[in-house]
Amino acid sequence: MHSSGSPSPSAPLPSPDKQRQSIGIFDSGVGGLTVVSAVHRLLPREDIIYFGDTGRVPYGNKSPEMIIQYSLQISRFLISQGVKAVVVACNTATAHALSSLRASLSVPVMGVVVPGVEAALSATRNGRVGIIGTYGTIQSGAYQKALLARRPDVQLTAIPTPLLVPLIEEDWLTHAATHLVLAEYLSPIQAARCDSLVLACTHYPLAKGVIGSIMGEDVTLVDSADNMARDLARRLETDNLLRPAEDIHTGRIRLHVSDLPTQFATLARRFLGVRVGAIDKVVLD
Amino acid sequence: MHSSGSPSPSAPLPSPDKQRQSIGIFDSGVGGLTVVSAVHRLLPREDIIYFGDTGRVPYGNKSPEMIIQYSLQISRFLISQGVKAVVVACNTATAHALSSLRASLSVPVMGVVVPGVEAALSATRNGRVGIIGTYGTIQSGAYQKALLARRPDVQLTAIPTPLLVPLIEEDWLTHAATHLVLAEYLSPIQAARCDSLVLACTHYPLAKGVIGSIMGEDVTLVDSADNMARDLARRLETDNLLRPAEDIHTGRIRLHVSDLPTQFATLARRFLGVRVGAIDKVVLD
Repeated sequence: MHSSGSPSPSAPLPSPDKQRQSIGIFDSGVGGLTVVSAVHRLLPREDIIYFGDTGRVPYGNKSPEMIIQYSLQISRFLISQGVKAVVVACNTATAHALSSLRASLSVPVMGVVVPGVEAALSATRNGRVGIIGTYGTIQSGAYQKALLARRPDVQLTAIPTPLLVPLIEEDWLTHAATHLVLAEYLSPIQAARCDSLVLACTHYPLAKGVIGSIMGEDVTLVDSADNMARDLARRLETDNLLRPAEDIHTGRIRLHVSDLPTQFATLARRFLGVRVGAIDKVVLD
Repeated sequence: MHSSGSPSPSAPLPSPDKQRQSIGIFDSGVGGLTVVSAVHRLLPREDIIYFGDTGRVPYGNKSPEMIIQYSLQISRFLISQGVKAVVVACNTATAHALSSLRASLSVPVMGVVVPGVEAALSATRNGRVGIIGTYGTIQSGAYQKALLARRPDVQLTAIPTPLLVPLIEEDWLTHAATHLVLAEYLSPIQAARCDSLVLACTHYPLAKGVIGSIMGEDVTLVDSADNMARDLARRLETDNLLRPAEDIHTGRIRLHVSDLPTQFATLARRFLGVRVGAIDKVVLD
């Protein structure tokens, strides 16, 4: 049931205690904080528990079996903290692990692929859609399959853009080198005259400015984070899992990581866009 | 004893069986294969067992405690395979884990820092030495400390160049963007008029061409891999651990990884420079 869009009509209403539980969000590292930021802006009264698997980042170059194993382990940690839903804020993990997670967990599990795909199909006028992401995401074919399943005549241009994550993490977005790298990556998407471009990596919203300057204003950039947040809000509303309307509450954001490298706090602040509180290092077993 | 340069004079000579054991080499991923390649060229009769921790790469942004834990685990695997020496072909692991490894293992343990440092001090004429590496390596201060311990008046310019590894792995070395990135990274080293530059990352030998074209021929590029191989050969000779001279044998290279991503075999071939045989995936415990 939890993998469908709507709850069973006969299901009892969740208790207020259940509704007050946190939203669990995880990613391989810091990138999913763009999703945390979007969810916090849209649902400012909800508490969020984030897990960044910084000890094992990146997932983009790991095997599907390993990504499934890590995703299950992290989700079990989030469930142990009491969450009412799990958001997979990592494109690689969504592509490889979403169905395994839905089969194992008793709370709604949301991935980043479908919201982006639906937003791209709403945005395109000429049926030509571009996709950029890590090797793992592009090679998994998850976006391509989901787009074609909904609209078989869509023309796709999917390009792995692996240098973009390090350029974003290094904060080189305004450098000439980044413009050159992106101009080369994006040229097949321009040549295919795509009018919408899916940013299929949670890091990429930070590069919207430079990507937009290359693609021009006639191309819609589909931001996974914003679309994920809207999809989550709809799902929690449908399932009666939003925090009770009478609660006066400002949502708290708690950050957990599997390793705490020197740069994490600085990066987290840039990705989250708000002040970062304590960051807890957690040993998963 | 094993951490000093020479064996105890009273120690018995190692048996031919011991001398026929393999050399164990490990790195966080594929980069250490430049060291394998250099060792194989210099000691073509020696067998080599390589472990690339591809499931947990990169080490450069992980904490020292985690790097020590991983290095011990990998070394125990190599010892279980019967190796006569362990080479830490990873600058980050050498910087953080070398002393822990030497305290725990009963075979000689060699790191990549000292050979590079000694080669840089031999090469410099004006006493100005540049160092480039990952954040982990530069922030550890391992090269800076080792250089200053040997020559306190040396002038150091150490620059983290984190975009270089992804550019090398993407094979973008001939792109204009790579030239721009490196020109920016290297400008403080040029401004400091360094006449030798330590490539303090096992990936970087592959970028020697473009680095050399920016630095000019008056600057000596100190390649960790070549210097590591020479240092290892000297140590094995001193300890009477080289394969018996009467053996007619072509050294075999066996590759082990903790995860086997799609691109690994292609990357391994580029880094190793020779044909890659079977690659075994190993689960460490």
